[in-house]
Amino acid sequence: MHHRLRQRRDRLLGPNMTTFYKDPVHIVRGEGVWLWDADGRRFLDCYNNVPHVGHCHPRVVEAITRQARTLNTHTRYLHEDILDYAERLTGTFSKNLDSVVMVCTGSEANDIALRMGQAITGKTGIIATDGTYHGNTALVSQLSAKKPPVGGHAPYVVRVPSPDSLRPLGGSAESQAQTFAGHVTAAIDWLESQGHGFSSLILCPYFANEGFPSLQRGFLEPTAEAVRRAGGLLIADEVQPGFGRLGSHFWGHERIGASPDIVTVGKPMGNGHPVAAVIARREITAAFRNAYGYFNTFGGNPVSCAAAMAVLQVLEEEQLVENARDVGSYALERLRELKHPFIGEVRGAGLFFGIEFADEGLRPQPEFTNGVVEAMKDRGILLNRLGRDYSCLKIRPPMPFRREHADMLVEALADVLEKAPG
Amino acid sequence: MHHRLRQRRDRLLGPNMTTFYKDPVHIVRGEGVWLWDADGRRFLDCYNNVPHVGHCHPRVVEAITRQARTLNTHTRYLHEDILDYAERLTGTFSKNLDSVVMVCTGSEANDIALRMGQAITGKTGIIATDGTYHGNTALVSQLSAKKPPVGGHAPYVVRVPSPDSLRPLGGSAESQAQTFAGHVTAAIDWLESQGHGFSSLILCPYFANEGFPSLQRGFLEPTAEAVRRAGGLLIADEVQPGFGRLGSHFWGHERIGASPDIVTVGKPMGNGHPVAAVIARREITAAFRNAYGYFNTFGGNPVSCAAAMAVLQVLEEEQLVENARDVGSYALERLRELKHPFIGEVRGAGLFFGIEFADEGLRPQPEFTNGVVEAMKDRGILLNRLGRDYSCLKIRPPMPFRREHADMLVEALADVLEKAPG
Repeated sequence: MHHRLRQRRDRLLGPNMTTFYKDPVHIVRGEGVWLWDADGRRFLDCYNNVPHVGHCHPRVVEAITRQARTLNTHTRYLHEDILDYAERLTGTFSKNLDSVVMVCTGSEANDIALRMGQAITGKTGIIATDGTYHGNTALVSQLSAKKPPVGGHAPYVVRVPSPDSLRPLGGSAESQAQTFAGHVTAAIDWLESQGHGFSSLILCPYFANEGFPSLQRGFLEPTAEAVRRAGGLLIADEVQPGFGRLGSHFWGHERIGASPDIVTVGKPMGNGHPVAAVIARREITAAFRNAYGYFNTFGGNPVSCAAAMAVLQVLEEEQLVENARDVGSYALERLRELKHPFIGEVRGAGLFFGIEFADEGLRPQPEFTNGVVEAMKDRGILLNRLGRDYSCLKIRPPMPFRREHADMLVEALADVLEKAPG
Repeated sequence: MHHRLRQRRDRLLGPNMTTFYKDPVHIVRGEGVWLWDADGRRFLDCYNNVPHVGHCHPRVVEAITRQARTLNTHTRYLHEDILDYAERLTGTFSKNLDSVVMVCTGSEANDIALRMGQAITGKTGIIATDGTYHGNTALVSQLSAKKPPVGGHAPYVVRVPSPDSLRPLGGSAESQAQTFAGHVTAAIDWLESQGHGFSSLILCPYFANEGFPSLQRGFLEPTAEAVRRAGGLLIADEVQPGFGRLGSHFWGHERIGASPDIVTVGKPMGNGHPVAAVIARREITAAFRNAYGYFNTFGGNPVSCAAAMAVLQVLEEEQLVENARDVGSYALERLRELKHPFIGEVRGAGLFFGIEFADEGLRPQPEFTNGVVEAMKDRGILLNRLGRDYSCLKIRPPMPFRREHADMLVEALADVLEKAPG
């Protein structure tokens, strides 16, 4: 299937451009939590967080249309919409996160956040986990490069072991927080000893790509303490957990009880419109602007702001954060009833949850997990996998995902697991 | 004026965020070549190349609306619109530029282009001019950093002297091409001697930020020859001159007779919608994908492709490239009739032209130029300045700029120059 389309794609976009699924889907239409392919087949979208308030939400489309008809220009002229949005956005954070740099992608946001840390500390060293992904610019891809880039890895980036649900650092859930902080402290010492100094620790406060391990509130406290003591900054990449996805809080760092110096947001911010931002204490933003004289042509244009504002409005009006809390805990409950010898752990928060598959010896089961992903797709349910070993189901649907959709998901998964080897 | 708005902006977006003009304009509406401020005052837009086919062009708005209503998702599912666009876009280039990577900003495009050069050569050295700007990521801003970033300038980036209209390299217009090539050759030798090796020379083929000096067709030939001989790549940043702006050709590199290995496009591509791209020989794209496993969440989404496709269609249907040629040469003719002792040179191509102001000793006149920019704004005409000394008027209007608009521009400028000191 899709042979001609894939050939054409290979020819025009270059070979080895990734797709999802062995036989990729050819999606032509979306609405709410639903996607349709070119043959009219309907898929339940349990994967996409970018269409945060639902595919093609009419309120967002209307906001984009209205503003695109009126004006779309850059921020070197004055415009109120960017200020209204920045005011509303910073209003969702604790008071010290009070200034905003608007850009177009999460990668751009993280590229800035890292340089903010460098600008205000005057040092270069950066710490990230060994299972993360923060984006695709030359600098940001250094955080997660699987193979070294040309010229080698940047000497000022250190990766520390990721926290893990089934195989906690230090051997127990209780020891994990201290052990993680110990790795960060060792990394800081190493960066100082090499003359780079330490500027920032960047992490997703939900450790999404690491497989969103179950962590206690306060997990980051000893780490944050080590970062502060060393004069460095904590950067929370909220590109995945942000905007209420976790149900209990609007931001992932609130859920874990952390107080970042800089927050980056992206994917869900404009429901698919390319918009992202960095939120930081005013003096950090000032130090960055002073060091780099940054300007972004498309960043904060009125259309992007209109899309982003509509997302915040719809989240509130349709009470989608509450929905994430309710449906998320309902789905977790139902997933916990499933039986299969490879079910290592059912975990998650709000509308970002999954199952880690492992055998009795806790060995990850990436092949098995992939089989589940493919079988679910064959049943019309789109999801994927993640984690260091790609053995954890990644279920992260648009926010208007209801209990009835969770039922469809769980029932299909029950069927797949019943028929699966193991 | 705008005191409250500027204070609010300072508070929410951080201090020292640049604006145009001493008293910035507060723009609320746009249409074609016109912008209106909050007081209803109309400005002739002689500056913005992003709204390429005109502010809020209904065809582009309609394309965005229609697609945003239907589907907006990423390229890990198959979709035909990105292929249709890639086919149409590559069709505007010479046959060897046959594959496309779609992203969101010109900065992202250049960040990739530089790494493409590194991926295929296995070397890191990059050469740019000393008067250029290619974007704002950590890597790309290294090309033009006015002050060194934290940690210092990248040792593998070398800047060579920019070509100049009034003060040609080597002392004469004839010697300029060879002298520029000589600087590039010396930079290549230096990069090789330092162990970085040479990967690419990146430049705007119109040398826009350098003040778009008058250069002969074939100017880049000796330079391109030196680049090829050294096994490096030529990257043409078409973010400013591209999409027919120069009137004579669709791309700036065609006008100067150069054959780049990689082309980057951005700003005007989606008429303001954040979309950009890298166009390269297939094996270069393949080497990049293989080295970096690049994926861009928003890049090439169906809405971005719809906006970009509409721009290409409108350019053709409204014969805007022909218009750029006609109105550009008409405007140059009329500008050449202006009299002022500081008029050093009137130059440009298509709808990207200006006047370099210098005194009899060829000393640049940045303050004078700034005064002209401010006085023009007071007369309802938006333009700006650029060049190494910011002493050259930057006139780069939307493409539906007609002879009647050129008349308004020239008449206002005549009046300003008549009253100006000098």
